[in-house]
Amino acid sequence: MIKTVYFEDDVVVVLDQRKLPGEVVYEKLDTVEKVAEAIKLLMVRGAPLIGVTAAFGLAMAVSQFKGSREELKSYFKQAKDLLASTRPTAVNLFWALNRMEQVFNQYAGEDVEIIKKKLKQTALKMYEEDIKVNEAIGEYGSELLPVSARVMTICNAGAAATCGFGTALGVVRAGFNKGRVDKVWACETRPVLQGARLTVWELIQDNIPVTLITDNMAGYVMNLGNVDVVVVGADRIAANGDTANKIGTYSLAVLAYHHNIPFYVAAPLSTIDLNIGSGGDIPIEERDKDEVRKIKDFYITVEDVDVFNPAFDVTPNHLIKGIITEKGVITPPFSEGIKMLKGK
Amino acid sequence: MIKTVYFEDDVVVVLDQRKLPGEVVYEKLDTVEKVAEAIKLLMVRGAPLIGVTAAFGLAMAVSQFKGSREELKSYFKQAKDLLASTRPTAVNLFWALNRMEQVFNQYAGEDVEIIKKKLKQTALKMYEEDIKVNEAIGEYGSELLPVSARVMTICNAGAAATCGFGTALGVVRAGFNKGRVDKVWACETRPVLQGARLTVWELIQDNIPVTLITDNMAGYVMNLGNVDVVVVGADRIAANGDTANKIGTYSLAVLAYHHNIPFYVAAPLSTIDLNIGSGGDIPIEERDKDEVRKIKDFYITVEDVDVFNPAFDVTPNHLIKGIITEKGVITPPFSEGIKMLKGK
Repeated sequence: MIKTVYFEDDVVVVLDQRKLPGEVVYEKLDTVEKVAEAIKLLMVRGAPLIGVTAAFGLAMAVSQFKGSREELKSYFKQAKDLLASTRPTAVNLFWALNRMEQVFNQYAGEDVEIIKKKLKQTALKMYEEDIKVNEAIGEYGSELLPVSARVMTICNAGAAATCGFGTALGVVRAGFNKGRVDKVWACETRPVLQGARLTVWELIQDNIPVTLITDNMAGYVMNLGNVDVVVVGADRIAANGDTANKIGTYSLAVLAYHHNIPFYVAAPLSTIDLNIGSGGDIPIEERDKDEVRKIKDFYITVEDVDVFNPAFDVTPNHLIKGIITEKGVITPPFSEGIKMLKGK
Repeated sequence: MIKTVYFEDDVVVVLDQRKLPGEVVYEKLDTVEKVAEAIKLLMVRGAPLIGVTAAFGLAMAVSQFKGSREELKSYFKQAKDLLASTRPTAVNLFWALNRMEQVFNQYAGEDVEIIKKKLKQTALKMYEEDIKVNEAIGEYGSELLPVSARVMTICNAGAAATCGFGTALGVVRAGFNKGRVDKVWACETRPVLQGARLTVWELIQDNIPVTLITDNMAGYVMNLGNVDVVVVGADRIAANGDTANKIGTYSLAVLAYHHNIPFYVAAPLSTIDLNIGSGGDIPIEERDKDEVRKIKDFYITVEDVDVFNPAFDVTPNHLIKGIITEKGVITPPFSEGIKMLKGK
């Protein structure tokens, strides 16, 4: 399986996802600043992977610490804050950093070397857990697929968005292994084209049939009767089930609703943010206008045209048939199901 | 106003729209084969403009004819058939060629030089008429706009799609001149990016405020409450009002319906095809898969991935609030209104 992030001699190494599928290039990120920059620039992306990569970055930062135990606390906080400032929407980032902080606080009285070791162990544990979580999501989600399912998805909620296997694509993978998936419709996902670049690439590697479409073809393909189910990932899920995910997800959910096609969100429980009551309170990142104006180095439009470039949108819970987690599928009313599973 | 097609010394000259907005380049097309190729390759595009350009090409072909009057008929038919074979969906192409044929038949008994002259006159007349038709569409359509309207559109149904002024953008232009338009949301319109390349460029030239978005942002922008009305063009309208237009139009119509935003089609009566009862019978062109796989010369995905690339989709009449024509706005039930206006 594709490696998205790992340690090599205590240095964080990541797959540069901006270069896929043309080039498979790994980058050594030997400072926490470089890790933060990699997350900002989408070298590393995907909510679960952002979380684990930040944890790796924080563990590396602490491993490089040379001062006294008294100075470590503010050093830790500074590194954590830097990583937390990279992207606002995906809650897995904050979840992962907070988990690291809990471990830090737990061992704060110990020797610095022990703290370093515990943090690295925790980061590696989160990595391993993420793969297991995805496999569980795949197992639960695949049971929801009809026979010979034609699955539509947007963006990349695959192995490349996680530590392996994927969330939405984990459902596809598990379903395909059970003979339940006929094909995947991959929406290309402008502006950054994660669907065209990453989802297509992953599925082809696994010999799962995939057809690429531009995002504006989704409704037409549904209306032709060629989509049985839509499965997407998530960047943050509110306590009531409203779901922030890659821009275009909301349009897809409305279109699925109009065509009476079940629409599922696949995400680890760590993506559910109980501090956010409903989708309106999820911060939505706006990114550089040139992401829309340019493809590669070319302007595709008038260079200084005004652009609106939200990286995410929010799908209200009433458009969602179920949220597929590692502990089971949550169905409406979501507030209750979420409370129950998060409490476990 | 931008010239999209004209005669220069009896040769057809067109604006190469593939190069906009980066370069404004005109191409001399001195054979009917070159005119046909220009239409196929989208050097010239937009339903009304395709029709007039084909008429120009046919007039030029006949002007170059050197044989006897007896041979002219099959020469004419061959040239007409070549032009008719370029693109299947936009009915204006066939409408324009049939109109030329009617004139040809009317003067079939005259001297060849007279036939040449009459055909050229007819092509030029269609050019002039198209501009007047667009201005009338603009006048009727602008009255439908709310004050301070924020208008969303897809593709380019503007001056570049016509002989001038535009259909959907004609409504915007007339509305803006009356102070009724606050801004335009231009959907970029993958795969060929006519929104990003042409609509943005046209509107900026006319100082009409425009914000560019990727197609998958449309639903989110609507849900934010930032769209008052959607106006699009058409490539073929069935007798019941079902409308074929650029791929993505159907998704936009469903999204507008879901958000209770009025959705209008702006098109000349020549776009209405009474021979087609409903949208299901409109032929939908599928174009080269590389249109989706590549942007400029770069592959944005795995080079041999399967692609579905319909150039158009069909919006059913129940999602359309009105069809804006040069003789007035047709409202449901469309079949009756269409029969009435086409009969005029």
